[in-house]
Amino acid sequence: MPTNIHETSIISPKAELGEDVVVGPYTIIGDKVRIGNNTHIEAYCEIGIAQGTQDGGLLTIGAHSTIRSGTVLYQGSTFGEGFTTGHKVTVREGVTAGDGLQLGTLSDIQGRCQFGEYVKLHSNVHVGQASILGDYIWIFPYVVLTNDPHPPSETRLGCHLEDFCVVATMSTVLPGVRLGRGALIGAMTLVREDVPDDNICVGVPGRLVGETKKIKFKKTGEPVYPWRRHFHRGYPDEIVKSWIAEFE
Amino acid sequence: MPTNIHETSIISPKAELGEDVVVGPYTIIGDKVRIGNNTHIEAYCEIGIAQGTQDGGLLTIGAHSTIRSGTVLYQGSTFGEGFTTGHKVTVREGVTAGDGLQLGTLSDIQGRCQFGEYVKLHSNVHVGQASILGDYIWIFPYVVLTNDPHPPSETRLGCHLEDFCVVATMSTVLPGVRLGRGALIGAMTLVREDVPDDNICVGVPGRLVGETKKIKFKKTGEPVYPWRRHFHRGYPDEIVKSWIAEFE
Amino acid sequence: MPTNIHETSIISPKAELGEDVVVGPYTIIGDKVRIGNNTHIEAYCEIGIAQGTQDGGLLTIGAHSTIRSGTVLYQGSTFGEGFTTGHKVTVREGVTAGDGLQLGTLSDIQGRCQFGEYVKLHSNVHVGQASILGDYIWIFPYVVLTNDPHPPSETRLGCHLEDFCVVATMSTVLPGVRLGRGALIGAMTLVREDVPDDNICVGVPGRLVGETKKIKFKKTGEPVYPWRRHFHRGYPDEIVKSWIAEFE
Repeated sequence: MPTNIHETSIISPKAELGEDVVVGPYTIIGDKVRIGNNTHIEAYCEIGIAQGTQDGGLLTIGAHSTIRSGTVLYQGSTFGEGFTTGHKVTVREGVTAGDGLQLGTLSDIQGRCQFGEYVKLHSNVHVGQASILGDYIWIFPYVVLTNDPHPPSETRLGCHLEDFCVVATMSTVLPGVRLGRGALIGAMTLVREDVPDDNICVGVPGRLVGETKKIKFKKTGEPVYPWRRHFHRGYPDEIVKSWIAEFE
Repeated sequence: MPTNIHETSIISPKAELGEDVVVGPYTIIGDKVRIGNNTHIEAYCEIGIAQGTQDGGLLTIGAHSTIRSGTVLYQGSTFGEGFTTGHKVTVREGVTAGDGLQLGTLSDIQGRCQFGEYVKLHSNVHVGQASILGDYIWIFPYVVLTNDPHPPSETRLGCHLEDFCVVATMSTVLPGVRLGRGALIGAMTLVREDVPDDNICVGVPGRLVGETKKIKFKKTGEPVYPWRRHFHRGYPDEIVKSWIAEFE
Repeated sequence: MPTNIHETSIISPKAELGEDVVVGPYTIIGDKVRIGNNTHIEAYCEIGIAQGTQDGGLLTIGAHSTIRSGTVLYQGSTFGEGFTTGHKVTVREGVTAGDGLQLGTLSDIQGRCQFGEYVKLHSNVHVGQASILGDYIWIFPYVVLTNDPHPPSETRLGCHLEDFCVVATMSTVLPGVRLGRGALIGAMTLVREDVPDDNICVGVPGRLVGETKKIKFKKTGEPVYPWRRHFHRGYPDEIVKSWIAEFE
């Protein structure tokens, strides 16, 4: 049974809420919404809003999710279990995401894009339509994934980010660019061309400066990348075990 | 008659609402507000707030406007018809705008600035005080128009953007810079000096790299710019007809 | 006595509110909150929220503060007198700040960081955990202070900003970097290395280009920096007097 629904929230009788769902003050939940068990929707959220009078289809939020205050989620998206947002996040319609998606405070997901498993976006990341992101990706604050090669135009040529890639703060990825598996984009980089697997791109304009394996921890001399060798917080035990086994 | 005012909204009896105005839940509308017909103000908006105890003057929103949730509009601005905001937009006092202004999600308009007709700002654009923007301009995400040549100082030397110019993602325009008619600023550019009409500026620091007419669509070989040659979505028929006639 | 609490606000009976406190519509104030006299909390704010079920400790807001609408302040921070936020600001737990802190609209303070006296952040500034900021600092829009030298990792190596330094629009400061007293960072700069006192750093990557004293006002030929020589708005009289005396 749904429990702990704040009396000031406005919830459509058609919305399907799982067990142990918490809904905070002043939150609005629309018709076409299915929320999994043990999920917490904080205050001032709009869950399942429509684009004008269009029926955007069902919004599904997996179990064990945390939607922080001020978040706006449109209809017509599907998020896996353990979905987490920061405050004041906006996600337009047509997103599909695996488990463990994290969207940091103020992130702005334009819709019609795909996220794999355990993708983590820090604050204020902008993801354009038609972006395709694989699994275990990290994107840091103020990164923009663009999609229009000839602005303004009708073309939506999304970026394609492969598993384990990392995009550091304040970088922009130009339309249609592919970031390879395990690629590393330095802070404030303008990525104009594809980056091969496990390679580093830095600068404005971005240039390739070698493989990620050359980066070592100062203290230990151990390689920093692939980061799954040493960074495990927030991933399921089974996945972490497989990562550890990979480097034994 | 005003219709469809959500019971949780807080609307000053002095506010003037046109016909067929919709006001969403938890929205606050102040004293000095005039809202045109067929306008939709979504949830959690603050319309016509004052700066402290000052009387900032009337806020006018034209007919057929859409103000998305979480938007804050101060007193003392005038927006033409078809004004559209994304979510969580902030507009300080003293803005004048023609018809068709679009302000994307999270955009932050500092007030005391001017927009011409059909200016379109994508998400998270920051417009400093004293900026002057002409007609049919496009600004893409995370662009900042600055105004203080010697920060911090009392000087407000706004940027001046001429008709049809385009500023791509994550660019910064320095104080007092003029972007010419039809100028194109590439992504992640620091624009330090004026850009002539129909010229391209890219890089950090920005440098002029030629005229926009040299950019062609790969598939067709047709010129991309002026973009009004091929991109017409969202503009009135009459304007589009004049643009088509221009290139026949 | 507390006065002027909007009837739609939700205030814990355990919260301690000073005299002449104003609380706007739909604002939520939690248990562990102490608010000084003459403070105005606008609409839609969340004051003193907890991170999950953790007790984050007391949130203290000094007298004469203005918290603008949509601001989220977590438990476990202490702000001095005259604290001011723009709209839609987010501050996580564990911040200590002196008097006169200003956080512009959309600023995102990640918590566990320190601000001295009269630090002023313009819109949309992101401050990472472990940042240490001295007194009388200015940070302009879309600046990011980072902290992870090997993203993603568990290391939090904050930036260190000394008194009177100025960081212009859209700059990124890399982890552990020290900006010296009175240092000036130009717009869209990637600061990778320490900047000496009163020196200028510009570009991507940032490079040192001389001392701030070489920058003169065009009209008067007077030096622009140290800015405390000529810019005094918003500082206490006593401080301004000491600055004026310094240059006599």
